[in-house]
Amino acid sequence: MGLDGRSLVTVDDLSNAEIEGLFSLADEMSNLMTEQSDVCRGKIMASLFFEPSTRTRLSFEAAMHRLGGRVITAVDIGATSLAKGESIADMARVVGSYADIIVIRHPWEGAAKVVADYAGVPVINAGDGGHEHPTQTLLDLYTLVKERGTIKGLKIGLWGDLKYGRTVHSLAYALARFGATILFHPAPGLEIPEHVARKLTREYKGELKKSDAMNHAAKQGLFAVDAIYVTPTSPHQLAMMPDISFEVELEKGVDALYITRAQKERATTTEGQASDKAYPVVDRRMLKGKEFRETLVMHPLPRVDELAYDMDSDRRSKYFKQAALGVPVRMALISLLLGSKTLDVRQDSETFIRKANYPRYDRGYGVRCGNEKCVTVNEGKYIKPEFEIVSSQPLTLRCIYCDHEVFPKYVASSEWHDGTIERKRYHSANSHWARRIKPENLIVFESESEAQCYGFKPSKYAGG
Amino acid sequence: MGLDGRSLVTVDDLSNAEIEGLFSLADEMSNLMTEQSDVCRGKIMASLFFEPSTRTRLSFEAAMHRLGGRVITAVDIGATSLAKGESIADMARVVGSYADIIVIRHPWEGAAKVVADYAGVPVINAGDGGHEHPTQTLLDLYTLVKERGTIKGLKIGLWGDLKYGRTVHSLAYALARFGATILFHPAPGLEIPEHVARKLTREYKGELKKSDAMNHAAKQGLFAVDAIYVTPTSPHQLAMMPDISFEVELEKGVDALYITRAQKERATTTEGQASDKAYPVVDRRMLKGKEFRETLVMHPLPRVDELAYDMDSDRRSKYFKQAALGVPVRMALISLLLGSKTLDVRQDSETFIRKANYPRYDRGYGVRCGNEKCVTVNEGKYIKPEFEIVSSQPLTLRCIYCDHEVFPKYVASSEWHDGTIERKRYHSANSHWARRIKPENLIVFESESEAQCYGFKPSKYAGG
Amino acid sequence: MGLDGRSLVTVDDLSNAEIEGLFSLADEMSNLMTEQSDVCRGKIMASLFFEPSTRTRLSFEAAMHRLGGRVITAVDIGATSLAKGESIADMARVVGSYADIIVIRHPWEGAAKVVADYAGVPVINAGDGGHEHPTQTLLDLYTLVKERGTIKGLKIGLWGDLKYGRTVHSLAYALARFGATILFHPAPGLEIPEHVARKLTREYKGELKKSDAMNHAAKQGLFAVDAIYVTPTSPHQLAMMPDISFEVELEKGVDALYITRAQKERATTTEGQASDKAYPVVDRRMLKGKEFRETLVMHPLPRVDELAYDMDSDRRSKYFKQAALGVPVRMALISLLLGSKTLDVRQDSETFIRKANYPRYDRGYGVRCGNEKCVTVNEGKYIKPEFEIVSSQPLTLRCIYCDHEVFPKYVASSEWHDGTIERKRYHSANSHWARRIKPENLIVFESESEAQCYGFKPSKYAGG
Repeated sequence: MGLDGRSLVTVDDLSNAEIEGLFSLADEMSNLMTEQSDVCRGKIMASLFFEPSTRTRLSFEAAMHRLGGRVITAVDIGATSLAKGESIADMARVVGSYADIIVIRHPWEGAAKVVADYAGVPVINAGDGGHEHPTQTLLDLYTLVKERGTIKGLKIGLWGDLKYGRTVHSLAYALARFGATILFHPAPGLEIPEHVARKLTREYKGELKKSDAMNHAAKQGLFAVDAIYVTPTSPHQLAMMPDISFEVELEKGVDALYITRAQKERATTTEGQASDKAYPVVDRRMLKGKEFRETLVMHPLPRVDELAYDMDSDRRSKYFKQAALGVPVRMALISLLLGSKTLDVRQDSETFIRKANYPRYDRGYGVRCGNEKCVTVNEGKYIKPEFEIVSSQPLTLRCIYCDHEVFPKYVASSEWHDGTIERKRYHSANSHWARRIKPENLIVFESESEAQCYGFKPSKYAGG
Repeated sequence: MGLDGRSLVTVDDLSNAEIEGLFSLADEMSNLMTEQSDVCRGKIMASLFFEPSTRTRLSFEAAMHRLGGRVITAVDIGATSLAKGESIADMARVVGSYADIIVIRHPWEGAAKVVADYAGVPVINAGDGGHEHPTQTLLDLYTLVKERGTIKGLKIGLWGDLKYGRTVHSLAYALARFGATILFHPAPGLEIPEHVARKLTREYKGELKKSDAMNHAAKQGLFAVDAIYVTPTSPHQLAMMPDISFEVELEKGVDALYITRAQKERATTTEGQASDKAYPVVDRRMLKGKEFRETLVMHPLPRVDELAYDMDSDRRSKYFKQAALGVPVRMALISLLLGSKTLDVRQDSETFIRKANYPRYDRGYGVRCGNEKCVTVNEGKYIKPEFEIVSSQPLTLRCIYCDHEVFPKYVASSEWHDGTIERKRYHSANSHWARRIKPENLIVFESESEAQCYGFKPSKYAGG
Repeated sequence: MGLDGRSLVTVDDLSNAEIEGLFSLADEMSNLMTEQSDVCRGKIMASLFFEPSTRTRLSFEAAMHRLGGRVITAVDIGATSLAKGESIADMARVVGSYADIIVIRHPWEGAAKVVADYAGVPVINAGDGGHEHPTQTLLDLYTLVKERGTIKGLKIGLWGDLKYGRTVHSLAYALARFGATILFHPAPGLEIPEHVARKLTREYKGELKKSDAMNHAAKQGLFAVDAIYVTPTSPHQLAMMPDISFEVELEKGVDALYITRAQKERATTTEGQASDKAYPVVDRRMLKGKEFRETLVMHPLPRVDELAYDMDSDRRSKYFKQAALGVPVRMALISLLLGSKTLDVRQDSETFIRKANYPRYDRGYGVRCGNEKCVTVNEGKYIKPEFEIVSSQPLTLRCIYCDHEVFPKYVASSEWHDGTIERKRYHSANSHWARRIKPENLIVFESESEAQCYGFKPSKYAGG
């Protein structure tokens, strides 16, 4: 089975079976670290970093070199051709004619999808703003598999900045897909965002339990969690959940504690200052209890102060191992997308279908993504906005580029013309009438004035 | 036939026959894109970019990797060793001892020639300020040859910023050499410079016709041109020219339309603002006429707004193909200069001798290049200015580094000492006496005070 | 004999015999410059430059490519991961899991040692602030050996900025080890620092003669020196020294003149301005005397104005050859540290034991390095300061990271508890009582208040 020519924009571009096959290949790749392999001889990887990232870039480049391929690199490109006003799409097309595969990091959310749409060669997302960083997630999962044999049924604590940490969001989705239970322990003010929670429960069919244990536990110096997410692949646990308190959950320890630094470059100033004071620190003392005796300590690095140096020599610490495992994981991925290797997929493996097959909204007007870092907002002159209608109550459109959700206030049907001109009416999006419009006929408006601009008049369901 | 050890500073460093041979080799190189060639195995290319340029640099580096060579890269060097005051010549010598070939981009005009003079290895000019960018021209020509079979007799429209676009100047010279007719359609205020027009007619022996059709045609929404350049290799066309109006010329369409962006980084603020408003835009609507049915749409990229995205899927658009063809062209060039390949030159090919064999002026005083971006102005401590005396009426000296022309006001003869001291006189450069001085005896002065400084007295032909 | 797995932080990490063996290997490497060697095939070198340096980086990378290895590069890293607060140790550990060898340049002094301590792979110091740049010294020595056959007994003039030029300090130590005589000719105000002079005489067992010839000679336009350093490996010269004046010494010429630019980026503003005016310039005229007929002119480059361009074509000038020889020297070094080559060490070679085996002070308190550019000051959260007690009169502790010396004012003994609490006393560091404390029991304090903080009371020898 091949992945030849495919791109990796989000970790959901790979099925569970494919990920497991990729991990088997990564095991094989680890044996190539001490010699020069020729797996990708004759291939060129372009490494395009619009945001600085020494670690991730060097990991990708080392992987390509170990495979026998060649690398062309552009870093800090913000200061170069884009300064002349070049679009991401043009850059993708041009570099796609130089190289056989592109690795892209960009500050705009959804940028990697645009590159993948235009490049004509496989594209790997090495981080697009606060959106996705799928190879980080793959190496996190791979570390867990190497340490515990499986992800299914593991209990993983996510710790720190759960709001801006893109690695945490991707990891949460992936853990959910593989049937792990997740305990959220955010720094104050940096809780997991609503849209991530919604996606977890809606698309990965899990259950999220909110806790008020935070304040309670904090007073007692306990390891408290904000919420627990339980996947349906652990039905017995799900059944038990109402009976166990969060504290009990924690007394049993966790299989792994995944710590992240405060993403100050993405946070507001207020958030940054608040988290400075109260950011939880993991150190040897905190993990001295016997319930943590087998807890893996993980971190995507770089760390700042949230993970003490006294953990470095601790046998439970796996963060440097994570970084090291990034190379064979990326070797496996690159060789698969280039078609230099094929996947050995287990027949009995559970497959995963990314998400519900939502209807699309792609009229190109009436709504624009509200995320100012979205690539559609910044490269509007050639990208047509496109959304998934993920919910009708409230009407929720999710940008297919950056996953940001927008909630249009007014709607109409494109079928008005079947009747008289008098029927060209708009309605409040939360009116019962609105729900009767078929998705393929849906027209949305950001405001009444916009609707009127397009020649619509208010219906009796357009009330404020 | 070999090019081993030669450098490419300007496209005129290659004869027509050599360029045609290089294109044949580029055809061969295109077949090496999917495998690892060993043509340049064991060779190192140094890629030195003192100005940002992701596209050009990556193209060169991909080319070297495809050839099996290795690459060392320094970008944004302005911030590093040169900040310590290092000269271009020292840098060239040192890097020339590390690498087998050097690719250089530098903001100073003539810098590539200095590197070629000192490096001791072949040097390729990847852009020296507004002066030359010969590999861009080669890939432009190669695209035309791939699309039309030949350049001779083609009619090419040059569109946009014809003042600061270095790619346009180089391309114009090269088109002239190969016998194409050129139609100039500048953005307002960004007409082709005098010195380029002069060089076209004087050294490429063509004829340039200025039009007043711009204003006239603009009113009628026609595609009007500012000037038409006709080469002597199309004598029948030349003969016809008085009979055809510019509009007629255009009604017949053009074989290719070569569009360039406004080079705002080189323009004055006033020019930049002016061109913002009136910069001509090429889009599908403009090219809907049947006279443009077979017109190739070309652009050196990056584009800004002068070329609409609706052209991207048009079969006439060749700008992404141009970029892609840059790789085999550069592969061919690098392998030739390194001596890894030899040229297969057609015996019947027309050769081209660069320019009239002008006398040199290299006294090192009396005149300095007036171009503040010229390398001789910026690296004066070790480069001796040198000029070609391209005309005596008016006396015109052209800098051999940046091609900028200077017009000295006063002259003398070095033969004054043959007579009495009284004959040590200087004359006005446009006096008839001045024209009697042999070039090898010529001494020039920027001012009367300078002449007097050197001990000369005014002759009766020194009048203002 | 192998160097497999060792690091090169300072040139003293290699014995004289090892350096000589490395030079033999460099001779062999010079023959590999025109073909692709596979000596280091399958190995990856990470090139981490936290300070800009085009020349040194490209030299290392060219060396690795010539050896058949691969290179991953990060330049100007100050703006990237470290901006997120990452420590040098974390960076070293992560990159050490990607690459097989690391080349590091960093503005903090001692940084290369930290990288070597944590990386888990061999590390080469490519310059750590003003501290060391050992491969520059190796190529300087190699050039001398290629030109003169040996270093022993050579007379070398060090010229220019002897205060901030790190290459000059390393070179001086190395010349001393190999038995050369050194003449110091500093620019005014940029004399060789005390600690360098001390190390030369104390650890390399040489003799330093201060001259008052500077002012005297300057008046007469002579080439005057500030000090002459003579190594004990030239005992006959040492015996002669009192009988010869500095001027006589100079009239005999020098074997090599090693010139350095003013290191303005490290100097104070006052020093920079002062040296601007009076910085000595070497040109053809200065070296026209017959005593300089065979003097090699050397410079680590880049040069500014201290070495005139008229020397470039002079047969005595070796500075571009130095740069060129850097590649085979680095090829030899990289292949040795990677274990791809072994050393062929001469049996009769003199070995060198780095320094006296000083007792250590590593209590982690009571003293911190006074050098604000020391890595221990900047990365204090995980590096424990550590010192060598290099002298007791005055009490002198030398930082093992940056070689900066500190002079604690107060001391105590850790054996106070053997007696009564009353004996917990501190003393002035220069009291005779202080000298009776065994090094392993020594406790030092920066101030009386610090001593009192730790519960000590003043002894009668604590007087100010």
